[in-house]
This record gives sequence, structure tokens and C-alpha cells, in this order.
Amino acid sequence: MSQFGMHVKFTAKSGQRDALVAILLEGQAAMESIHECELYIVSVSDTDPDAIWVTEVWSDAEAHAASLALDETKAAIQRAMPLIAHIDAVKMKPAGGKGLRPAAI
Amino acid sequence: MSQFGMHVKFTAKSGQRDALVAILLEGQAAMESIHECELYIVSVSDTDPDAIWVTEVWSDAEAHAASLALDETKAAIQRAMPLIAHIDAVKMKPAGGKGLRPAAI
Repeated sequence: MSQFGMHVKFTAKSGQRDALVAILLEGQAAMESIHECELYIVSVSDTDPDAIWVTEVWSDAEAHAASLALDETKAAIQRAMPLIAHIDAVKMKPAGGKGLRPAAI
Repeated sequence: MSQFGMHVKFTAKSGQRDALVAILLEGQAAMESIHECELYIVSVSDTDPDAIWVTEVWSDAEAHAASLALDETKAAIQRAMPLIAHIDAVKMKPAGGKGLRPAAI
């Protein structure tokens, strides 16, 4: 099983970025308690007022999928969806680097 | 000063992905010794044989810029450039999450 990465760009509806960031950052508490979640970073842009990125690394794809089935995740997604204009998700496979547990291609 | 993030997609020339990943992963050793570098992750794709992502978080933009001026970084860039077909770099500002030092918008 290899580590699983996601880099998701959310485009918030105009004026909704900060509300959406708040919901996404609420997810941090849940992620802190899930060992398989190695990284969950919410980022914004200095130049695009509607852009939000969530960068995640999980021990494997199954752990990530299981997290989406949690009640709190489903509730957060339901609250977030009305604030989102567009989602662009990219799956990645970490090969290594600083800040992660060792991984192999 | 706020944390500085980068998410860079490298498109390798055909057949050059693994050689480029190797050069990028060599950079990890240097990053390990730079306190201001909080995250430096090299990732590949299961579906796109030429795609490589480097996701970085730095204590601030100045520390990131300073790292690019290091002789070893310049030498690695020189070795890597002939292997690269395209670069798409996105600057981000981490707002928080799991795996990072606390940050504020």
C-alpha cells in the first residue's frame, strides 16, 4: 500500500472564501485524531480572492475514502457545497520529501 | 510574516519522470537542514506518466527565495531543466491544518 495524496482547488462563490475556509479548517480537529491522515493543509491565495487549496496526504487511499464516510465529514461537505463554485481535484502519489513518513514509488 | 506555500507541477519530457524525481528528491537532504523549510513533498501520478508535483511550505517567502540562491539548488535546477517540458507554479498562503506549525490568515 502506498501513500495517497490529494491537491484540491476549491473556487468559492464570490465573497464566500473565508466562510468556506472556516468550514475546511474545522476538519482539522477530526484529522488530528486520524493517524492515517498525515497532512491536511488549507491554503488561500494572495492574488485570487476566491481560491482555496486543500493538500492532503494519507497512509493510503482507503483511509482517505473512509474519512469521507464520517458523519462529521458529510455534515461539513453539506455546509460547504453551497459556498463552492468549482472543484478541481488532483490525485497524487507522494514519492518522498521533508515532512512526511518515508514512502516509496 | 506569514507562511509561504508553493505547489509546482512539473511536466517531464517523455520518459524523463523518474530521472527528474531523483533530482528533486536529492533536494530533500538540503531541505532537511533548513529550519524554515517546513514541507517539501515530491509526488507523482498514477495516471499521468509525465507529471510530478512539488508541494512546499516555508516560514516565509524570503526563506524560500534564499533557498533558490544556494549553489546546490542552482546546480540541481541546471541538471533538471533539460528534463522538463513544462512548469506550472502556484503560490499559496497556508491558513492552517494538520502537519504544519500554526499559521494565521
